[in-house]
Amino acid sequence: MFDCGEGTQLQLLKAGIRHSRISAILISHLHGDHLYGLPGLLSTMTLLHRVEPLTIIGPGGIAAYLDAMPGYAEDEPPEFPIEFVELQEGFGRRIVIDRPDYFVEARPLEHRIITVGYRFQEKVQPGNLDVERARELGVTDYVHYRILKEGKPVVLGNDRVIQPRDVLGEEKRGRVFAYITDTRPCEGGRLLARGADLLQHEATFLHDLVDRARETGHSTAYEAADLAAEAGVGRLLLSHFSARYQDAAPLLDEARAVFERTDAAEELVRYPVEKMDGFSG
Amino acid sequence: MFDCGEGTQLQLLKAGIRHSRISAILISHLHGDHLYGLPGLLSTMTLLHRVEPLTIIGPGGIAAYLDAMPGYAEDEPPEFPIEFVELQEGFGRRIVIDRPDYFVEARPLEHRIITVGYRFQEKVQPGNLDVERARELGVTDYVHYRILKEGKPVVLGNDRVIQPRDVLGEEKRGRVFAYITDTRPCEGGRLLARGADLLQHEATFLHDLVDRARETGHSTAYEAADLAAEAGVGRLLLSHFSARYQDAAPLLDEARAVFERTDAAEELVRYPVEKMDGFSG
Repeated sequence: MFDCGEGTQLQLLKAGIRHSRISAILISHLHGDHLYGLPGLLSTMTLLHRVEPLTIIGPGGIAAYLDAMPGYAEDEPPEFPIEFVELQEGFGRRIVIDRPDYFVEARPLEHRIITVGYRFQEKVQPGNLDVERARELGVTDYVHYRILKEGKPVVLGNDRVIQPRDVLGEEKRGRVFAYITDTRPCEGGRLLARGADLLQHEATFLHDLVDRARETGHSTAYEAADLAAEAGVGRLLLSHFSARYQDAAPLLDEARAVFERTDAAEELVRYPVEKMDGFSG
Repeated sequence: MFDCGEGTQLQLLKAGIRHSRISAILISHLHGDHLYGLPGLLSTMTLLHRVEPLTIIGPGGIAAYLDAMPGYAEDEPPEFPIEFVELQEGFGRRIVIDRPDYFVEARPLEHRIITVGYRFQEKVQPGNLDVERARELGVTDYVHYRILKEGKPVVLGNDRVIQPRDVLGEEKRGRVFAYITDTRPCEGGRLLARGADLLQHEATFLHDLVDRARETGHSTAYEAADLAAEAGVGRLLLSHFSARYQDAAPLLDEARAVFERTDAAEELVRYPVEKMDGFSG
């Protein structure tokens, strides 16, 4: 889960997402609208007797923030292990999560305080096994099929070695989601976004307020779309609109003029991460 | 405003209550469900450029809690003055707010940590001016009427002194609201509740779980009703139900068997504080 503003636990309930499905919470920066739902969510997880471990990733200070929180752990400390990964001022590229099927890369963004962007990337999957071809080569044992699918060679009874490449189709790249907020358009954002299937980028202002965006460390809809086009993403999802805009339509229009495949994020709507056509790298 | 759990600012919005109408926030105790909405609400007040002063009252530690909150005041400190009133372990009766038309009394309750109950009381209002009687006594000047209504005597041109009691009807007592959560039934609660027009009292459990209530420092619906009857309140409003009860009906039934004039609090419903019949003290 990326960021955790006030009321997140209520939205999870409405979205029908069980707490146990959340294995990591990645915080962009320590401003309230990205953070103040965390103590309540952790309290509820504790109350519901969660046992699964949880990883909390974010800028330095996040563990101290939770430690200083009255009513969070004093009374009934969590029974589940929490691992903190803190990124300190001046950090560079960092792999903050590395699991068998995906990893998450963090890079610094440019906001008023230390802020982190994230790139979630599924690992390359082996291609499909061509069973007909395998049989032709004399592989008939299902245990051998599994070993080959895992990318390892097998040795048959006749000492013949079958390599995975002999029987597997093309490798399948995983999907990529980049989460970039709150920030000016910046190098870290561009690197995280490159070739992403879905880029969620903040668009606090319309471009007529670009001066205000510079002052406050935010981006305009035009700038988000420009970065999306340059990074060659599949789709762009705008978010983090200033309260001055009662309707996201003008922000969406401004972005679509530059990058057509853009949506404006709405609460409780699912935006699937789908592989772009014609991109296999 | 009494207590400020996560999501309070959203509920204020839904209820159509403007932030500027909140002059004081009174926190019962430093557990998350009574507290975690406070940083977000203060941030929003800051963002909306509130200028009115705000009083925050609660157990010791509440100012430090807000001080330690990243993203709350670092970036854009509030422009409005905040006065903290902290009650330390072992405090007795205390008048925490004293305004021209009402005051609030605090007393300690009995929970797992230091917890405060509150009694909001409107001050006595002078009776209505009997204009006919005033004219008979020679008072015809509207300035004199106002002075008499404020409880001060006036001297007429003929040196005759008219006392307020000569022209005013019976004094009108103010309304009383008592807010008592989270606690065992206790002496502090009883004293705060006496003769209240409306008592909001927690009822976490049904009485078959009274042992669990004792362990966790809570009350049962039966106990809340018993206290309401003993304190001679006008109406009882039950709140703070355990999540194990999907419906408040059994709690309400249990309480009404002891004290009939009981409701079970629901989100976003107004429960007016109306003077009890036949009570003029």
